[in-house]
Amino acid sequence: GIAVLERTVTALRGAGTLVLADAKRGDIGSTMDAYARTWLTDASPLGSDAVTVSPYLGFGALEPALRLAVDGRGVFVLAATSNPEGAQVQQARTADGRSVAQVMVDEAAARNAGADTLGSVGVVVGATLTRAPDLSALHGPILMPGVGAQGGTAEDVRRLAGERLDAVVPNVSREVLRAGPTAAALRDAVSRTVDSFAFLRA
Amino acid sequence: GIAVLERTVTALRGAGTLVLADAKRGDIGSTMDAYARTWLTDASPLGSDAVTVSPYLGFGALEPALRLAVDGRGVFVLAATSNPEGAQVQQARTADGRSVAQVMVDEAAARNAGADTLGSVGVVVGATLTRAPDLSALHGPILMPGVGAQGGTAEDVRRLAGERLDAVVPNVSREVLRAGPTAAALRDAVSRTVDSFAFLRA
Repeated sequence: GIAVLERTVTALRGAGTLVLADAKRGDIGSTMDAYARTWLTDASPLGSDAVTVSPYLGFGALEPALRLAVDGRGVFVLAATSNPEGAQVQQARTADGRSVAQVMVDEAAARNAGADTLGSVGVVVGATLTRAPDLSALHGPILMPGVGAQGGTAEDVRRLAGERLDAVVPNVSREVLRAGPTAAALRDAVSRTVDSFAFLRA
Repeated sequence: GIAVLERTVTALRGAGTLVLADAKRGDIGSTMDAYARTWLTDASPLGSDAVTVSPYLGFGALEPALRLAVDGRGVFVLAATSNPEGAQVQQARTADGRSVAQVMVDEAAARNAGADTLGSVGVVVGATLTRAPDLSALHGPILMPGVGAQGGTAEDVRRLAGERLDAVVPNVSREVLRAGPTAAALRDAVSRTVDSFAFLRA
């Protein structure tokens, strides 16, 4: 399994495609450091352009990954995920009244402060949500899964991203993959999806 | 890296040792299902006796792993971890006033209800904490990392486990490993650690 993933990542990066590994890793200390080196350095056959990380252990525990999110590489911190069960943790309130999801966005914003264009610390905000956390100060990319098979639409992406449409990266996987297995059918599904997101190029 | 881990897990299980994989996995749907099959079935070379899982996506998203926690296998859900940054998420309050950590313990308790001895759904509670969530109704095992190198002591384990001393599994890794690399030194470190936890056998 891992060997196939290694070959896939290497082939895609060799072809010049950006690779965003949705690995959702989250640990502390030396283990987090090893995960970060695995997913974010050229020394590793899984080295990608960006990786998703999970902050149940707190934003601060992600430091080894944040430190490697430089020179064109990035980290996407799970903030508000696309699955309904996620609200149990992500909508809980910290002592100052913010939701856990908002705290993650704010922590990412603090790391991105001062970056010229968008900073290297992005967040994950599901396209299936009723309401997104306040993304206005993020100054980083917003990965938006949950489009298609999970029920989110291009219109949901537009609504949740609001003023930050320039920073949103909607991602569609199952909705496209289930059109397979022929290359022609996959290509058609990709075209349809790209068309529905034409507003992102405006 | 993964190949070495596969050989290690296989060798340990072949020798009759219980293997608890501290993988902290957490995802949704088909991905969580694949993680669960990787860590909790004999069909996989990483199949272990138990695995740690991370609930940032909500307890409900862990269902594929909970479903495989049968026939002597188990899952340990991160509740209150040993690192100080963890409180940011784990001490946040849900709508009914419980902490996120307590919600995880209560959800695990609900899954263990009706089990004859201890149920298969355990929780992770760090030995470095000032206060543990209420574990009195858990009826499942409590993994307690953070002993030794991270600052937790045998006395902390005794205090945090309270009445549930029968269910606690303190785990010590760096404190023992740093005594290496000779086998004799490692053996000594293990003996000292076992002695300090003699109260668990009382």
